[in-house]
Amino acid sequence: MIHYGNIHMYEKHNGMLEIKPEMLIQTKDQLEQVYTPSIADISMAISENNCLKDKITLSDKLVAVVTDGSAVLGLGNIGACAGLPVVEAKSLIYKSFAGVDAIPIAVRPVSIDEFVDTITNISLSFSGIHLEDIAAPNCFEIERRLNKQLNIPVYHDDQEGTAIVVLAALINATKVVGKKLKDLNIVINGIGAGGVATAQLLLSVGITKLTLVDKDGIIKKDSPNHNKYQTNLAKLSQVSPKGSTLSEAIEGKDVFIGLSVSNVLRASHIRKMASDPIIFALANPIPEIDPITAEKAGAAVVATGSSQYVNQINNILVFPGLFKGILSSGVKHVSMKLQVIIAREIASMISDPNKDNIIPTVFKSNIVNHVSQAVKNYTN
Amino acid sequence: MIHYGNIHMYEKHNGMLEIKPEMLIQTKDQLEQVYTPSIADISMAISENNCLKDKITLSDKLVAVVTDGSAVLGLGNIGACAGLPVVEAKSLIYKSFAGVDAIPIAVRPVSIDEFVDTITNISLSFSGIHLEDIAAPNCFEIERRLNKQLNIPVYHDDQEGTAIVVLAALINATKVVGKKLKDLNIVINGIGAGGVATAQLLLSVGITKLTLVDKDGIIKKDSPNHNKYQTNLAKLSQVSPKGSTLSEAIEGKDVFIGLSVSNVLRASHIRKMASDPIIFALANPIPEIDPITAEKAGAAVVATGSSQYVNQINNILVFPGLFKGILSSGVKHVSMKLQVIIAREIASMISDPNKDNIIPTVFKSNIVNHVSQAVKNYTN
Repeated sequence: MIHYGNIHMYEKHNGMLEIKPEMLIQTKDQLEQVYTPSIADISMAISENNCLKDKITLSDKLVAVVTDGSAVLGLGNIGACAGLPVVEAKSLIYKSFAGVDAIPIAVRPVSIDEFVDTITNISLSFSGIHLEDIAAPNCFEIERRLNKQLNIPVYHDDQEGTAIVVLAALINATKVVGKKLKDLNIVINGIGAGGVATAQLLLSVGITKLTLVDKDGIIKKDSPNHNKYQTNLAKLSQVSPKGSTLSEAIEGKDVFIGLSVSNVLRASHIRKMASDPIIFALANPIPEIDPITAEKAGAAVVATGSSQYVNQINNILVFPGLFKGILSSGVKHVSMKLQVIIAREIASMISDPNKDNIIPTVFKSNIVNHVSQAVKNYTN
Repeated sequence: MIHYGNIHMYEKHNGMLEIKPEMLIQTKDQLEQVYTPSIADISMAISENNCLKDKITLSDKLVAVVTDGSAVLGLGNIGACAGLPVVEAKSLIYKSFAGVDAIPIAVRPVSIDEFVDTITNISLSFSGIHLEDIAAPNCFEIERRLNKQLNIPVYHDDQEGTAIVVLAALINATKVVGKKLKDLNIVINGIGAGGVATAQLLLSVGITKLTLVDKDGIIKKDSPNHNKYQTNLAKLSQVSPKGSTLSEAIEGKDVFIGLSVSNVLRASHIRKMASDPIIFALANPIPEIDPITAEKAGAAVVATGSSQYVNQINNILVFPGLFKGILSSGVKHVSMKLQVIIAREIASMISDPNKDNIIPTVFKSNIVNHVSQAVKNYTN
């Protein structure tokens, strides 16, 4: 049963955004300045020096927020039309939180080749590509190819955004339980876009004891049921998992990171974990386990993706500040190193973490400026 | 030598437009309303009924102004980057003159197939496609295919926009010289995007005496040097032109319509025309003949594409009002019939045409509302 309560709010506006002129056209002279004959000079100048485009057109500041609707929120492949409200909301958030001009683009279902060609063909119009809600494993190849062939930054929020906030929260949760980051023995449940990117980022900071579990069970180096992105990660992990189920995987672990579906984690699972277990139950809108149940079962720190509970791990902490920083500094690639820097910056905003406060809230003053400044410092 | 005088104005703004929020996000509640968890309901609702997309997302009002830079203004194929300022200026004009939200998109040089696929792939994001500065003959096939496969209106300003304003001006110029529209014997010089579309529209209102001249000379039914769009028009014309040059073509004609290049029309040409010749010298920024020279040679009515002279024939009279009307009425196709209606509406705004006043100026009160109302009446 779907709740349509907010639809009238959207209908009223025909969407959440409008295009606003930055220049006035009220007189013949003003028209001649922004249009013919003056515009011919501008076009000729760019034609002689294409770099000028990025100084004098909207393309210097405009980010495309692009989806194909193949993995919308936690709702699955519900289509490009249904993906539009999410990229529109993200565009609104970009402007509202960070002053970044962004525009929603939905791409109908096409092959990886055609998706990449389509975005490449229109990329001159933008200064960055924010990919959103694109299903794994296609998203990996799409992002890799776009990153390779475009000279503007390409960022997949479900991958890098998720990985960055998870690492930020993990840094502080680890402090709360008095363990060391590199010693952590971690289960990640749900190895899609977010799971793969999170595992890669954890590996990059030296967290090598990762057990990866997907809907078909534990991922091993030679699993025939898992894709190459998943099995490659299993090869990089320093643990050799036994068994095949989440219940077997979780035994003795320090951390559970859920990027999967609602209610798959049980109290009995948590009771089998190491002392002071950390539970990140990030399925949206309903987490892998209810936080109260998790605490009762012995969890020392619990975080979710929901604003209903304390410790909301949400990509919104990352992308507005990230692109604000990118646009003002000219960063062309959201590297693993930059992701770690941003994660550490977000973590550092909580000066004295405790079990109910491991990550800033989105309305925490200056989160956007902290993140964008970290990006700018990275380039200096 | 290029005059860079206005570039600093563009630099100051990073373009002529910005994206503006229509909704506030200042509290946790507001964020939850426009983003998770509420957005999941909106996406699910659209997933169940894709038509809802057009009621509640930006795609209901957003027009894409798309170029590949292959025929920028009168400057030729100067590239997609150099085409961006023009589509940006048109987007600004849409909003400033008609309140229409439009966004500039530059497509890198690709095949016709790939151009059509690219726009089709992203078309869900928009309520209309305004093609701009795309060279003939590719523009004909691109527009035909997009019109066939998209269920949003596709409009090529260099074609339909030009044809509509030319017909509007011709209606009034013909009154000034006391001739009848259907009797006119016309030379069109420059049979590219604008020339083809203008010839088609004139044929559709029963003006069948058309002599078509391109850079390779007079177009005949079986010309091997001309493309099929050009020779098809020659087949539809009721005159059998002799000779091969403009100088031969223009002899005894009532009207010269130039959609070509600067300074190709001479006083000696005009002196060979019929009585009270009408001269539309629309090359930009410098017309096919200087208006003063044309008058001295006997032209009864002279119009140009430039705001420097009286009788400026400019597409800006058409597209803002056209799309304002389209968006508020749901028109899916800019048919030949609709083009004629708009041309007649624009012409009718000059109640008593004379040689210096055959077409409204863009700042004439209500041009946008007249055109948009004509579109709305067409659908009723």
